[in-house]
Amino acid sequence: MVKVIEGSPAKMGFRMPAEWEPHEQCWMGWPARPDNWREHAGPAQEIFARAAIAISKFEPVTLCASAEQYPNVYKLMQHQRNIRVVEMSMNDSWFRDMGPTFITRKGGPDSEQTIAGIDWQFNAWGGIYDDWSLDSDVAKKIVEIERIPRFPHKMILEGGSIHVDGEGTCITTEECLLNPNRNPNMTKLEIENELKEFLGVTKVIWIPRGLHGDEDTNGHVDNLCCFIKPGVVLLSWTDDEKDPQYERSVEALSTLSQSVDARGRKIEVVKIHVPRPLYMTEEEAGGVVSTEHAVPREPGTRLAASYVNFYIANGGIIAPAFGDKWDKEAREVLRKAFPDHEVVMVEGAREIVLGGGNIHCITQQQPVRPS
Amino acid sequence: MVKVIEGSPAKMGFRMPAEWEPHEQCWMGWPARPDNWREHAGPAQEIFARAAIAISKFEPVTLCASAEQYPNVYKLMQHQRNIRVVEMSMNDSWFRDMGPTFITRKGGPDSEQTIAGIDWQFNAWGGIYDDWSLDSDVAKKIVEIERIPRFPHKMILEGGSIHVDGEGTCITTEECLLNPNRNPNMTKLEIENELKEFLGVTKVIWIPRGLHGDEDTNGHVDNLCCFIKPGVVLLSWTDDEKDPQYERSVEALSTLSQSVDARGRKIEVVKIHVPRPLYMTEEEAGGVVSTEHAVPREPGTRLAASYVNFYIANGGIIAPAFGDKWDKEAREVLRKAFPDHEVVMVEGAREIVLGGGNIHCITQQQPVRPS
Repeated sequence: MVKVIEGSPAKMGFRMPAEWEPHEQCWMGWPARPDNWREHAGPAQEIFARAAIAISKFEPVTLCASAEQYPNVYKLMQHQRNIRVVEMSMNDSWFRDMGPTFITRKGGPDSEQTIAGIDWQFNAWGGIYDDWSLDSDVAKKIVEIERIPRFPHKMILEGGSIHVDGEGTCITTEECLLNPNRNPNMTKLEIENELKEFLGVTKVIWIPRGLHGDEDTNGHVDNLCCFIKPGVVLLSWTDDEKDPQYERSVEALSTLSQSVDARGRKIEVVKIHVPRPLYMTEEEAGGVVSTEHAVPREPGTRLAASYVNFYIANGGIIAPAFGDKWDKEAREVLRKAFPDHEVVMVEGAREIVLGGGNIHCITQQQPVRPS
Repeated sequence: MVKVIEGSPAKMGFRMPAEWEPHEQCWMGWPARPDNWREHAGPAQEIFARAAIAISKFEPVTLCASAEQYPNVYKLMQHQRNIRVVEMSMNDSWFRDMGPTFITRKGGPDSEQTIAGIDWQFNAWGGIYDDWSLDSDVAKKIVEIERIPRFPHKMILEGGSIHVDGEGTCITTEECLLNPNRNPNMTKLEIENELKEFLGVTKVIWIPRGLHGDEDTNGHVDNLCCFIKPGVVLLSWTDDEKDPQYERSVEALSTLSQSVDARGRKIEVVKIHVPRPLYMTEEEAGGVVSTEHAVPREPGTRLAASYVNFYIANGGIIAPAFGDKWDKEAREVLRKAFPDHEVVMVEGAREIVLGGGNIHCITQQQPVRPS
C-alpha cells in the first residue's frame, strides 16, 4: 500500500460518503486539557464516555487517549465490548475537526485502494489555543493504524465545517471557510474547487453564517444544519424573533430554499428548534483553569447549543439533550427525519457545549471499505 | 467481544502456535532510552529500522513509537508500504518480552474468539531498570488495537524465556524461570503447570542455563536455542573448550538429547556456532548515559551474542550478523534448517546486543486468526 497519495481524489473516483452510509467504526478522542474543560475535564469525560457507549451499541468505536489518560480510560471501558481504547497524543479532543475525512471509491482493476483519508491542515480554528502540533498528527495516526492511505492537503479545513449528501453536494458556511484566520490567500472559488476535487462533489452550497454564539469554530455548518437525506436539510431554528439566532436561521433558510443540489433537486428544509438561550454560569467558567495558552471562558457567554450536532451511527442517531423544554420536540423531529434509525438522546450534552462543540464535533465516522 | 477472559486457555482449546506458523503481522517497539542505548539510541534505531524493513518484505509490521519519537519514525517509514507506525509509550523496546503471547484455537460453535493474547506480568527482568509501568501496558495496548481478548496472568514471564514447537512442547531455562527475581513464591512444578495451562503444552523441557553473558535476561532460552521444527532444536554452540559458553552448550546438549517431546519424539539437536567472544568497548560503554534508573554498562563486558536470536517471518528468517567469521556458517546452517525460507542476515546486529538482546527479542509475531 502506498501511504501517501498526491493528486485529485475526485479524478481517481473517490467521494466522501454521506454520514448515513454504512460505517466500519467511529473514532473519538478523550478530553483532558484543564484550560478548556472545567474541573480538569472530569464532567466532560463522563459525557464523552456516555456518547461513546451509546454509539458502540450501533457500531465499533475507537476511543483515543493520551498516554497519561490511557490507564483511566482503559479501566473505564474494559467491559465495553465494542469500544477499543488506543493511545494517542492530542492537544484537545475534537476528532471531527482533527481527524481524517474518509473518502471511498468502488474497487476495480485500477483501484486497489477503496478507502483513503484526507489529511487537511489544522490550526485550531484560527488559533483558539497556541499549540496544535499533536492535533495536527491525529489524522495521520488514524489512517496509519488502519493501514489506509492519506491525501495530504495544504488547505486549512475542519471536518465540522462541511457536510455532504453523498450524491455530489456539499454544504458549508462562508463565516468559517472564508474567515481570514483560515486560508487568507485563497479565494472563495479556489476553496470551492478544492472541496470539489477532494470530496468528490460538484456543487457547493454556501450558507452565509453558522449558529449564533459559535465563535470558537467561526460558525461550523455542523452546528447549524445537516443533510438528513439527499435533497433535505435539517436546520436549527427559532421562532423567537428577538433571539439573534433568528436572523441567522432565516438567512440560512433563504439560502437553502433557493438552492438546487448537484442532482438538480430543490433543497427542502426541515426545521428543528434550538434550545432556549443557554449561558455559561459563573461556576462553569470558574472551573476552567485560565492560562495564556487558550482563549478564556467567560461567564455569561451564550452557548452555541443546537440539536443538529448529532452523530449518525449505523442504525442510530446519537443526539444531544440539554435538559431543555425543546429536547422532547427535537427527539420527535429526529425520529421523523430518520425513521429507520433509533434516536438516542445523550443527557448532559451541555458539558460538551461548554468546551465548544457537541456530539458531531467529537466523532468521526470511518465508512465501510467498498469491495 | 469480551475483552478479558479468565480461566485456562488450554482447557478452552487455545495453544501457542510455533513461530513458523503463518503470521498476520509482526509487532516491534522503538528504542530511545539513552541510559541503555548509546548515543541516544541513534545507532540502535538504525538497526531496528533495518530489521523492521527486512521483516516487512515477508509480512506486515507494526512499529510502535512513543509520542516523542513518533514524528521521526513516521518520516523514516513513510515509504515503507508494509510498515505502519503506531504511537505507544514504553520504557524500553523489547516487544518479545513485553508484548502479548498470542494463542489461537480453531473456530467452532463454542469458540467465537479464535485468537487471544496472554498478558504476563512484567518486572523488567527482575528490575534492570527501575520503572516499567509503561512496558507493563504494552501487551494490553497491542491486543486492544487488534480487538483481541486478553488473558491476564499473575506470573512474571517474558516471551523470550519460552519457545514452543506448536505440537505440545515448550523449552525454557531454569536460570531464568526459577530465578528468585521472577516468581520466588512459585515452585518449579507450579510454574510448569502455568505454562501448560496457558501455552497449551503438555511437556516442558527445562534447560539448566542460557547463554553465557546473558545476565540482563538471566539466560532467556531464545538467546541459546530454538525449535526449527517439531523434534529438532537449533543450539548455540562453541568448539572452544576454554570459552565459558562451552560448558553451557554441552549442558544444554545433554539435557535436550535426553529429552523426548510431547509427541514422544527424541529431541534432535543441530549446532550453530556462536560468534567469537565479543566485548563491549570503552567507546560503546561511554556512549550510554549513566543514570540511577538503569543498570550501568561496563566496558569489557562479554556480549551475549548468538545467531539463534532470529525471527521467523512468513517465508523469511531475519537473523543477526556480527561482522564475525562465523556469520557465513550461520547463514548456511539457517539455510539448511529452513529450506523453504529466505535467510536475511541483518548487519550491525551487535548494536542490539549492546542493549541486551537481538532480533528475536525485539519482535513479536501475531499469528493468523484461524477461521
